[in-house]
Amino acid sequence: MVDTQSLRPWLMLRAIPGVGDAILLKLVAAFGDPDAVFAATQAALEDAGCRPQLGEAIRRGPDAEVVKQLDHELMQVLQRRISVLTYLDARYPAPLKGIPDPPPLLYVQGTLLETDRRAVAIVGTRKVTPAGRAFAEELASDLAALGFTIVSGLARGVDAAAHRGALAGQGRTLAVMGCGLDRTYPADHRHLRESIEGQGAVLSELPLGAAPHSYHFPRRNRIISGLSLGVVVTEATVQSGSLITARVAGEQGREVFAVPGFVKAENSRGPNSLLKDGARLVESAQDIVDELLPQLDAPFRAQLSTRGVAKSTRRPALADDEARVYDALSVLPQSVDDVIRRSGLPAAQVAALLLSLELKQCIRQLPGNEYARLST
Amino acid sequence: MVDTQSLRPWLMLRAIPGVGDAILLKLVAAFGDPDAVFAATQAALEDAGCRPQLGEAIRRGPDAEVVKQLDHELMQVLQRRISVLTYLDARYPAPLKGIPDPPPLLYVQGTLLETDRRAVAIVGTRKVTPAGRAFAEELASDLAALGFTIVSGLARGVDAAAHRGALAGQGRTLAVMGCGLDRTYPADHRHLRESIEGQGAVLSELPLGAAPHSYHFPRRNRIISGLSLGVVVTEATVQSGSLITARVAGEQGREVFAVPGFVKAENSRGPNSLLKDGARLVESAQDIVDELLPQLDAPFRAQLSTRGVAKSTRRPALADDEARVYDALSVLPQSVDDVIRRSGLPAAQVAALLLSLELKQCIRQLPGNEYARLST
Repeated sequence: MVDTQSLRPWLMLRAIPGVGDAILLKLVAAFGDPDAVFAATQAALEDAGCRPQLGEAIRRGPDAEVVKQLDHELMQVLQRRISVLTYLDARYPAPLKGIPDPPPLLYVQGTLLETDRRAVAIVGTRKVTPAGRAFAEELASDLAALGFTIVSGLARGVDAAAHRGALAGQGRTLAVMGCGLDRTYPADHRHLRESIEGQGAVLSELPLGAAPHSYHFPRRNRIISGLSLGVVVTEATVQSGSLITARVAGEQGREVFAVPGFVKAENSRGPNSLLKDGARLVESAQDIVDELLPQLDAPFRAQLSTRGVAKSTRRPALADDEARVYDALSVLPQSVDDVIRRSGLPAAQVAALLLSLELKQCIRQLPGNEYARLST
Repeated sequence: MVDTQSLRPWLMLRAIPGVGDAILLKLVAAFGDPDAVFAATQAALEDAGCRPQLGEAIRRGPDAEVVKQLDHELMQVLQRRISVLTYLDARYPAPLKGIPDPPPLLYVQGTLLETDRRAVAIVGTRKVTPAGRAFAEELASDLAALGFTIVSGLARGVDAAAHRGALAGQGRTLAVMGCGLDRTYPADHRHLRESIEGQGAVLSELPLGAAPHSYHFPRRNRIISGLSLGVVVTEATVQSGSLITARVAGEQGREVFAVPGFVKAENSRGPNSLLKDGARLVESAQDIVDELLPQLDAPFRAQLSTRGVAKSTRRPALADDEARVYDALSVLPQSVDDVIRRSGLPAAQVAALLLSLELKQCIRQLPGNEYARLST
């Protein structure tokens, strides 16, 4: 399942003090792979941007104790049948490669498919209201049934509702954790996690043994949004980590969606504040489909189209002269005389076009031979 | 109170069959006043855009029966101490002059002040929820206390809550009716109406005796928005007249505001759909002040400023080098090394600027000497 031979040098390089994710990826990009980094001369390492001290540390290699630890981790990876995808792996999710700070390694249990590019993240507060939970589940179920993969963080509340909804919709779902894959956090989501592994995957960038420290979660959130075309925030307070996820999503160029709520409810303040800042308002799965449609691949678009959810436009197609009459109207009643004058068309033609627009349910006739646009 | 001598020709011109608001205003603009219209030759009337038949009808004048009716109306106007402002009157509200179809006549009870330009309309469903009613009242009260005039339609539900809130906030409020001023609709809002006349005005474009027909209300709504800088829709179904008001407001170039609500509540579908279409989200009076500020007159801005509600910007002013460091940061933690590299500033200066940004509460320091933007 895992080619430990090729993975080991990645773990060794990551274990060198001073080698963070950014430097690791930079060195691998410069030399081709971690083995080549370890084989590089001091001068070459410094040319690649290492400070002298760091170059020396890399050439020295990790301590024996650290190597023992990472060999233990490799053993665990094998035993637990965990896949570890390096940044260079063909199976590494393409959308994640595009974010500013991609994880060099991704631990995966379950399966990642090419179609998981069609992903929507649904996140929110742990302390969800019953109505919020039901809505998150419904939204996830509807999107999953349409073929979207639902991404979330396995937390209580909205996250769990999102995963459960996706499972209920017979769709796929990915859970990104803020701890090593040898742990489940929260522990009582063990069964949920197993279901997710069966219809998707559980992922983490963290090594086995990593505890669910609070400082892991903000960085974990960039993976949730990085895997997704868009992030939906359902219920969240303004202090919520979900808002960080939404802002990171924006920085990553992902769509940000928010579900509005009553302004006096704490759990609505998060999504409402996102809406103020330009997030797209979500009332149903259709809103998300409408917004993401231009980014979806052609086969998926065709699939959505046959299901009748890929609307190309909200207004019926109008012929040129129909549009002229329509443009001469307002949602306020206008007399036929005014429409004739504004459209510049002959009276008989205007009468015919008004009838045609009425049959298309674009306008309505009012008492006194006045017409108004239908306000839909 | 009313100069019946100058008002009478307006009523007579309006009473000619075929003379609608648009033609009435066009003729008055062409000839200067209604007396001059009646004195015009057939040729002059046709030159001004009248069809021959209409020119003849004007030259003939209204029937004796009709003249008797309008003299009766004039008597009533005097008895009820109603002001009737013509479009040419200096007291006619200036914002209303700018809409595409201003009412030629405005019947007024109470007082209209120059400061009523600082108006915000609050509209919504008659079947408001208790929470929606409380919010509409609070919003109206807060805005009125700040010096905004609250405009609404005297209807049950949100309208009444808006007027009551304005009265409670010791502010001004205008009610635009969909019937003649000799009626009160609904009748049990008689006391509310009296209070409004004491702290503002009740207005209608309709002649005395006009009943509250349903087809009056969409046109009435253009006056509500036309008098206002912006229209707030609180609770409303998607079929609600409030949505027409909001769309007309958009056509008139007024700001459209909406109060979000739970997506499964019928009364939230109206405002939520407006938010989808780009309305500004309202959580409090502050949101409305922020948006309208550029349109407010300088003395009012100064007044709001001393009350601390006229925020010029949401982010504290940053010096150039502070902004450089701030721009190098993200809501995700960044190492100091990364900030130094991205900002291109010397390490010592970056350290000082990070501290300064932290004191300004723009960023926070995290474990491991990392920094992140505060997500506010």
